[in-house]
Order: sequence, then structure tokens, then C-alpha cells
Amino acid sequence: MQEFHLIKKYFSSLSKKNKSSLNLNDDVFFDKSKKLVVSVDTYVEGIHFIHFKKPDLVIKKIIRSSISDIICKGVKPKYYFISGSGNKKSFSSSNLKKISKSLQQEQNKYKIFLCGGDTVYSNKLSFTITSIGFSPKIIYRNKAKLNDDIYVTGNLGDSFAGLNILKKKIYTNSLLNRYFENKYYLPDLHLELSKKLLSFANTSIDISDGLITDLEKLINKQKFSYKLNLKNIPISQNLKKLLIQKKLNKLYYISQGDDYQILFTANAAKSRIINKTAKSLGVKISKIGKICSNSQKSKIIDQKGNKIDVKTKGYFHRF
Amino acid sequence: MQEFHLIKKYFSSLSKKNKSSLNLNDDVFFDKSKKLVVSVDTYVEGIHFIHFKKPDLVIKKIIRSSISDIICKGVKPKYYFISGSGNKKSFSSSNLKKISKSLQQEQNKYKIFLCGGDTVYSNKLSFTITSIGFSPKIIYRNKAKLNDDIYVTGNLGDSFAGLNILKKKIYTNSLLNRYFENKYYLPDLHLELSKKLLSFANTSIDISDGLITDLEKLINKQKFSYKLNLKNIPISQNLKKLLIQKKLNKLYYISQGDDYQILFTANAAKSRIINKTAKSLGVKISKIGKICSNSQKSKIIDQKGNKIDVKTKGYFHRF
Repeated sequence: MQEFHLIKKYFSSLSKKNKSSLNLNDDVFFDKSKKLVVSVDTYVEGIHFIHFKKPDLVIKKIIRSSISDIICKGVKPKYYFISGSGNKKSFSSSNLKKISKSLQQEQNKYKIFLCGGDTVYSNKLSFTITSIGFSPKIIYRNKAKLNDDIYVTGNLGDSFAGLNILKKKIYTNSLLNRYFENKYYLPDLHLELSKKLLSFANTSIDISDGLITDLEKLINKQKFSYKLNLKNIPISQNLKKLLIQKKLNKLYYISQGDDYQILFTANAAKSRIINKTAKSLGVKISKIGKICSNSQKSKIIDQKGNKIDVKTKGYFHRF
Repeated sequence: MQEFHLIKKYFSSLSKKNKSSLNLNDDVFFDKSKKLVVSVDTYVEGIHFIHFKKPDLVIKKIIRSSISDIICKGVKPKYYFISGSGNKKSFSSSNLKKISKSLQQEQNKYKIFLCGGDTVYSNKLSFTITSIGFSPKIIYRNKAKLNDDIYVTGNLGDSFAGLNILKKKIYTNSLLNRYFENKYYLPDLHLELSKKLLSFANTSIDISDGLITDLEKLINKQKFSYKLNLKNIPISQNLKKLLIQKKLNKLYYISQGDDYQILFTANAAKSRIINKTAKSLGVKISKIGKICSNSQKSKIIDQKGNKIDVKTKGYFHRF
């Protein structure tokens, strides 16, 4: 069963009395009266990160994945907790030194602080990160409006290419290998864009499971459909080359997740301010589609103007 | 390496700039400016709970263990997050129903709410619980004063007897088995005492690792010793009988932890108000010793007035 349905089926009743929790229907918990925003996520070796051969990079990836949930809601993360379960090898002195150094670098980069956590013995390596921020308001899910433009930051698909290179499913040259592997381990988060989002985005989510899956999650409670233009979905020059070289499918690549770019919708009238913000911050923001009425089916238009069926629904945490 | 030293060695520098975190030297994180109190703990099958044959009881145990950290600091927990890693069997529909029901019962009992979390696949079962409360002040560790009385709530050692019965290391009759097993799974937390603690306790901790270990943690940064009177350390009538019947050692039993009783120190002048509070709330509170100067060694006085060496240092999370 997918995590999404699992939580909904058995646990949504537990948070019903508590309006702040958004009934477990959002990526973060928001207590409006306390202005508190919390994200809790667990990362397991072999599922959320490929292996622990590069602890310095894995730690950066999971910290970014965690604070990404908060940043995409228009909130600056303030501190975090890390709980690690693993064996002696995973938490050797040498690895702990690397982990500590990586955390220090992430703290400097994103102005966050470690506030606690613990380490326990287990033969399976996993980490749970709790990230906390404060804000009088956040951008919720399921607040898209009819005819909203759909936007996405940065480029998609690079992380999945990196994963395939790490898994030795794709071979490229060492320069490209490093480029894609870095995109897998070190997603670019747009901290500086975060607060600005509040002024133009109606609804937002970060892309962890894949563009299509996360878009569907973003509007799942709403009676809307969407139209996406494949040609407008941003990918890097490097990925463009790779797709051509290896005859890979763009839609498949941008649907695999782990991108941690921000997906949001905004009224057409906000187009100007969005472009201006993108320019002034040096952040790539692409208009990739539109929110449509429920009378039509969701569709993706390919380069030739044909409608594509969406087969890949992105990555789910499975049970 | 023990968790305590592990965290200190590699991670304390990461929270140095952030005064709120208590430099990772306390069980909870306290952000005074936001009045926020957070506790994050991971519980692994085979380490923190014996097995998952009784998911309903295990869930109650770990929820109580988590909020216990907050309650012992004089703060009411408000909400919690639960992240579970496990296999399909652990998270079967039948188990999820039991988990959900148990959480509902704990929510009613302690007036807390589920606010989020996730479930991921892993062959090793573990849970990370994040508990959150709000308070303008908390009771810190390492704030004992010279000549403070040392107090403890409830009874100690019952939980360890329960664990031994579950492990089939001890055999008693079915009535006693159930009594001790329940003490293992369902520690009594003193929510009602929590806020009152702020008015008389100088420093406090909950007993998770064992009386001696937690007492030493409570004052580890202070240049103090302690004197405990073994005969005053409270155990249940059932444990008293068991110790005699099976010729078991009292000091050993009360040093094994998992009790979740509150250990605190207070000025001798507070003795009267403490007794009054205990009576009015119907909570057992026992004076078990004294905080002494560093010129003498810490000691435990047995029933005959002899000094006992402390060999058992309680339970550490090991790496």
C-alpha cells in the first residue's frame, strides 16, 4: 500500500480534532496559533538513498530533502533534529567525522542548527529528520485556482540520471558522471525564493516523488484537472544531451522524483512579478502548464502537440 | 560507544551557536523565545522494545516514553509525530488497526494529537517519535543545589521484572506475570504532577536508563556527589515479594531503567509542599537521598548502613 493511502486510511482520524495538522494532508504540520511549521521524514538506505559509501553526501541529501518540505511552503527552516539507526560500520569514527562536517556545511549554507536527536543500533541504516521553522502563514496544498498557471523551479530529471549512473545502469564520461551524481546528492534548494513565494503562489509542493505524482498530490482534494506542455518542462543541457544520446524518454525522467524543485500554481496576473523575482534572485522558474476544469481529463502535450498518457506515476514509498 | 559520549564528541559543536538547544546536554530541546519544547527519540525492536507481538502495547510504551521526556521537565506535551520503519508483516492491516486504536487511547489519556509522520519499508522495525509541548520555562538538568533532597515518583524496577518475565527468564503466577508485563508496557506517567514540578524541583529527568545512570546524567556537569538510601528507594509490594522469592538484588533491579518515573531534586524547605502535592494528586513521591559536596564520593547506603559500590550503571544505547 502506498504511504499516502496508508496514512489516510488508518491515521487521519487521529488528527481530526486538531485543525493545525491539516488532517495529515500536507507535507508539513502547521500550528497557526504558535506559528510553528514541522516536517518529519525517515530516510532508509536502499530506498531513499542508494548506499552509505559517501556518508558526507548522503547526509547533505537527506538534510536538504527534509528542509525542502518547509522551504517550498514559503518558510525558512530554523533548526533540525537527526535520529540515526545503523550498525557500527555506518557510525564509525571516520563516518561520524564526515557526518559532522557535512552537517556543519549545511548549517552554514542554510542557516539552520542541530537541536538534538539520537543514535541507536540497528542492522538497517536509516535516519529520521525533524525540521522546524516559524511563520505566521504557509502555502497549503489544494489551494490551486481554476486557470492558474503551473510553475516549477530549476531543472527536473538530473537526479534520476545521477541515480542511474550510481547504479551503473548508464555510462557517460567522468565529467558528466560527476555532474549528475552531484545533482542526485546535492539538490539545489531555493531558500531565497521561499518567502517571496507567499506573495504569488496559491499552492505549492516540493517534487520528491516526481512531477506528475506531486502535481496530483498538490490538487488531489480539488475538482480540477491539469494540462502540461512537455516542451516547457525544464531540463538541463546535460540531460538533454543524455536523453538524445541514450534514446531515453523525457517524460519518464522528469517523473522519477528526488528533484526537490518547487512546484506551484499562481494566477496568470502574477506572471510578471514571478519573472521579475526569478531574474532578481537568479532562480530559473518555468511556466509548464495550466490548472483546468474537471470537465476535461488531465493531459500532457508533447512536442508535436499530441496528448500523452501518463504511465509513470513517480515514486511511492511502498508497503 | 555510548550514545551520550557519541553525541557529545561529534555533534555538540553543531549546536554551540544555538543556546536554546542546551548544547545537546538535556533530554529535550527548549527554544525559550518560542516557548517550544521538543523531544525526538528512536525505538528499535530488540533494543527499546522486546518484540512486536503486541503492537497495541508497544505503541503505548513508546508514546509514553517519548512524552515522558517532556512531562518530567514540567511541560504538558501537546502533539506528536510518528515515523515507522518496518516490513509488511509489522504494518499489516490488522496491526495498523491496533496501532491506530492504541494511539487514539493514548491521545485521550494524555490529551495529545497526532500531527504527522511517515512509514517506510525496512527489514528492521523501528519508530521515531517527535513530541512537542509549549511552556515559558522548563526544569533543566544540572541545576541541583548542594544539600538538595533527591526524590523519585512511583515505584522502580517493576518494568525490568516485566521484561524478564517476557523474556522467560523469570516465572511467576499468571496474575503477577500480567502485573509486571503491564508495568513494562504501560509506564505510569504523572502528567498532573508536571506543571507543579516547576514550583519546587531544581532539576529533573525521567528514569529511562536506570536510577543510578540517570541520577549521574542529571548532575554530570556539576561538581557534586550524591548519597542514596536503598531502603527508601520505592518498589512495589509485588516486586518486594518477587525479590525475596527469587533472591534477586534490589539495587540491580532499580538500576535497569525503563521506569519512566520522575527523578528530581529540591531544597529541603520544599519538603512540606512536595508531600502536600503528592497527597492531593495521589502520586507517590519518595525522598531517597541527598546531593552532597564533591569532597566525598557518591554512595548508596544499604539496609544495614553499609556503603554499596555501584556496579550496574544502567542501560546504555550501545554502538
